Amino acid sequence: MRPFKSLISLDDAKKIIDKNVKPVRRKEKRNIENCLDRVLAVDVKAGFDVPGFDRAAMDGYAVKANDTFDAGQFKPKTLKLIDIIHAGETTNKIVHNNECVQIATGAKLPKGSNAVIMVEDTEKEKNKVKIFKPVYPKANVSGRNEDIKKESIVLRKGRILSPSRIGVLSALGIPEVYVYAQPKIAVIPTGREIANLNEKLKEGQVYDINSYTLMSVINGNGGNAVKHDIVEDTFGEIRDVVESAVNNDMIVLSGGSSVGERDVLFDVINDLGNVLFHGVQIKPGKPTLFGMIKNKPVFGMPGYPTSCLVNAYVFLLPAVRKMSRLQVKKEKIIKTKISRRVVSTLGRREFLTVKIEKDRAVPVFKESGAITSMANADGYVEIPENVDLIEKDEEVEVKMF
Amino acid sequence: MRPFKSLISLDDAKKIIDKNVKPVRRKEKRNIENCLDRVLAVDVKAGFDVPGFDRAAMDGYAVKANDTFDAGQFKPKTLKLIDIIHAGETTNKIVHNNECVQIATGAKLPKGSNAVIMVEDTEKEKNKVKIFKPVYPKANVSGRNEDIKKESIVLRKGRILSPSRIGVLSALGIPEVYVYAQPKIAVIPTGREIANLNEKLKEGQVYDINSYTLMSVINGNGGNAVKHDIVEDTFGEIRDVVESAVNNDMIVLSGGSSVGERDVLFDVINDLGNVLFHGVQIKPGKPTLFGMIKNKPVFGMPGYPTSCLVNAYVFLLPAVRKMSRLQVKKEKIIKTKISRRVVSTLGRREFLTVKIEKDRAVPVFKESGAITSMANADGYVEIPENVDLIEKDEEVEVKMF
Repeated sequence: MRPFKSLISLDDAKKIIDKNVKPVRRKEKRNIENCLDRVLAVDVKAGFDVPGFDRAAMDGYAVKANDTFDAGQFKPKTLKLIDIIHAGETTNKIVHNNECVQIATGAKLPKGSNAVIMVEDTEKEKNKVKIFKPVYPKANVSGRNEDIKKESIVLRKGRILSPSRIGVLSALGIPEVYVYAQPKIAVIPTGREIANLNEKLKEGQVYDINSYTLMSVINGNGGNAVKHDIVEDTFGEIRDVVESAVNNDMIVLSGGSSVGERDVLFDVINDLGNVLFHGVQIKPGKPTLFGMIKNKPVFGMPGYPTSCLVNAYVFLLPAVRKMSRLQVKKEKIIKTKISRRVVSTLGRREFLTVKIEKDRAVPVFKESGAITSMANADGYVEIPENVDLIEKDEEVEVKMF
Repeated sequence: MRPFKSLISLDDAKKIIDKNVKPVRRKEKRNIENCLDRVLAVDVKAGFDVPGFDRAAMDGYAVKANDTFDAGQFKPKTLKLIDIIHAGETTNKIVHNNECVQIATGAKLPKGSNAVIMVEDTEKEKNKVKIFKPVYPKANVSGRNEDIKKESIVLRKGRILSPSRIGVLSALGIPEVYVYAQPKIAVIPTGREIANLNEKLKEGQVYDINSYTLMSVINGNGGNAVKHDIVEDTFGEIRDVVESAVNNDMIVLSGGSSVGERDVLFDVINDLGNVLFHGVQIKPGKPTLFGMIKNKPVFGMPGYPTSCLVNAYVFLLPAVRKMSRLQVKKEKIIKTKISRRVVSTLGRREFLTVKIEKDRAVPVFKESGAITSMANADGYVEIPENVDLIEKDEEVEVKMF
């Protein structure tokens, strides 16, 4: 059993990961209704003007503006109604002096007209319309290409497709578009001490927890998790599986709670590629391991479920979001008082899981194997390396999950 | 063409919607790896203890604690090594006085032992182990059921399945679970003035934008949008489609930019059920319509894309989240200065879309038909009914999308 050689700091570990994780370059074509929160992989240029014509911005009457200039509340101007345009209709008629056409919002302005007078400012009598208010040219008209100009680039690659950006694509009649592929991330559980969920536990076994928490973190942050079967933690078995998993964009191994198992993983990564760090000055999660095999990042997560999940939030989540080109999620931070005294370890950054109860941060950590302590947690408090005690009622910053 | 009868306030409109939208009750069984952010529909009870046995929390040696009480840095106690338990293994051997068993983290404690001494505090020589430090009973041991007690309810129905809660399910060996179904929400585009994305535009037409923005808002907030074909806005056509769409949990109609079209929708809902409001004192989005048909909420969204989308955030999003049992998303608010003077309309709550640029809120609104103005928006400023002017550099609250 080998102890850790040398632990590195949290910040150094984050830097090493960031330097080695690259955004995915593969593209795929998808229907725009399945593109929410996906990342555009091409610049989108408008093939035509939107709208393609001057249109009415109100229900009313299309007029020549200068026919209305002398209209007033007590001195209405009477125009001749020559046609009616309902929504979706157009007319070939031309508006001449002292004529008007009834028009629905959104409809194309008839030739000869240059303004719309709102229905509220008129009175209709058979084929005559009284106008009670003057309008200036272009009043209540949405001009051609006011929204999008032909040939302009309306969305640049790298943009995350929000509802409104999907709206821009549909305005241009684009039913499908190239987005970046989601990175494929292999999740490999290791160790004879864990069992598949549908199996009966043998003596001394626990169920595979980490695969499911890791897949959730990956899939919830733009990745596409690919779960492998449980692998025995021998050099040969792990080496074979890792070697074949290198066709994914990233590999995450979980398990390896014991020093012996971690050594096997360390040896496999150094055999196929390079270990870049092995052991971080944090608690929980010291035994986190990171390396590169054929330009693919490989994470070895701690075996204990809580350690594994906290480290997934701290290390894996930013890596997945960078790879999937989603900007790093801004952390939501709440400042509040802590409910009890907490003793910490000097020299290690400690992550204390807490729930928010009656406006206080209540520690929920039981032991690093206890998944229930995470299930009740709303977030975590980072306790710096040089702090060994937080007093009851001291203010803390909670980073929310 | 009928004008609006009477507009209601934003707050009243929100209350009417909230009162009439009920959380969905249907359940469905899903594999836990596909349950992220879904809502648990049953209480989950533990069928067994987790862990099911006392286990080592560290790599080291399982001992009888009282054998170590007189051990010290310069006076090691020597124990006889009787077995080795690697990860995933167990032993039938019993630890007697002055004996120990080498044990990996997570492994089941052998009978007779009650503590684990860390490997760092020992020295091994063939089948002898020198102990340099005393340990108390239960030191470095995770006790049976310390995480989950058999028969206890570990997750209550209504909980949103986060990564850690999915971890709790896997700890209990539960591969699939009942979650609430996602509400099925019909999205029905209306009007001859809009065209399908794969069709050539006829004169006076624009592409169907609202279906795609509405589907995105619905699918991004726990709903399952079901898109219908474009419907002509005649009473008969819309009535037929709405009547058949009542088998969904909610119906959202878009289009109807003109008063005439809105009247048709109003008449259809009043024929099949009841209109609860028709016109809200907000800008943009005045023509929003809401009613109930056979206990199913029906939204009539404004036809203009920006109005439609702003109203989707204000009215539809909370309704979808309530129906899908996701607690209403807490709004993220940023306080900042506005980049220019803004004139507003007295008596109407105004929603001003803005982008955040150099720490200022820059209005991006062009006209309510302009989808590009939304595509650049980061959020919106709500201007109260009794305010008609915001001066340049005044502080505003931006509600982020």
